[in-house]
Amino acid sequence: MNESPLIERLIKALQCLPGVGPRSGQRMAFHLLERGREDGKRLASVLTEAMERIGHCSQCRTFSEQELCSVCANPRRDHKLLCVVESPADLMAIEQGTGYRGRYFVLMGNLSPLDGIGPEELGMELLARRLREERPEEVVIATSATVEGEATAHYLGGLIREQALKATRIAHGVPLGGELEYVDSGTLAHAFSGRQILAE
Amino acid sequence: MNESPLIERLIKALQCLPGVGPRSGQRMAFHLLERGREDGKRLASVLTEAMERIGHCSQCRTFSEQELCSVCANPRRDHKLLCVVESPADLMAIEQGTGYRGRYFVLMGNLSPLDGIGPEELGMELLARRLREERPEEVVIATSATVEGEATAHYLGGLIREQALKATRIAHGVPLGGELEYVDSGTLAHAFSGRQILAE
Repeated sequence: MNESPLIERLIKALQCLPGVGPRSGQRMAFHLLERGREDGKRLASVLTEAMERIGHCSQCRTFSEQELCSVCANPRRDHKLLCVVESPADLMAIEQGTGYRGRYFVLMGNLSPLDGIGPEELGMELLARRLREERPEEVVIATSATVEGEATAHYLGGLIREQALKATRIAHGVPLGGELEYVDSGTLAHAFSGRQILAE
Repeated sequence: MNESPLIERLIKALQCLPGVGPRSGQRMAFHLLERGREDGKRLASVLTEAMERIGHCSQCRTFSEQELCSVCANPRRDHKLLCVVESPADLMAIEQGTGYRGRYFVLMGNLSPLDGIGPEELGMELLARRLREERPEEVVIATSATVEGEATAHYLGGLIREQALKATRIAHGVPLGGELEYVDSGTLAHAFSGRQILAE
């Protein structure tokens, strides 16, 4: 092989990124070496800083390098609404795609007893304490529509009922632009049983 | 926005990689933060080292952190063959895909007068000196079959003829598995005029 060991190590190290294999790793390495050395150095320094300094918000558990993330620290967010999501990516999707102005709780996963992920790993105690102390008017459960997401939603429902609070679940049904013909039967069944009154 | 500034900076910095946009940058950042902090730190350190230490082989101009790359430093490579390529990636493709055991010269680009890339930028003087001193039996011109690659090949042909050396050009034609019907007409014309005798 003709590459210098350091290039090989760089190509290999780039493959820790999701979706990057030997081929794209090589393309990235050559791109940076040929015309992005400054970018590459900046990436390395931001990466080091991020890996070391980013922790979790003490209130909602999303990623944050501060004690409180910017949503929790924002006094203008609606304290009466709390939305429970699986991950920081889901939180960002809701921030970007909806007009939701309440606050969040990020589970950082789903219940998965086989993988040893129980209520403690998801911070359910912290959530229960927030529910007790903040008593939000509505808790929106926005876990995924997967088996694990539903199991987690079920558990959350119980937790919220215990505190005599209102829990809601985001709607499941046919996605916008989805043609009925091509929607899977589970989704269709959900959409059908969750039908809403237009006129009566 | 809910992200911490450092996460935003990380997502942005990742976009210096080719093929990475806001969406995939976010996915990479969350992946590293959630379950690849050690990988992320390792990537950062290899990246810093590579950006600082990798230069060019003094003989063939490919990337190398040593004075000589591993091909040039290898005494078992055939000194009678020299292959001229555009980029380190092309060099690697030839190393991996062919049985070529000679040495290389890497132009690090193509002639492109409009972009200010002339013979000097491509190290043509260094190449001319090598041709004079090493007098290889054959110089294989393996630039791309693009307009720029052909122009560069033409220039190289002149340079090699000046020294009364033998120059060859890699074959252009129908790629393996290529159906004639779907091959573009330029390639087909090339393949036709470059036809070889099977029997006569």
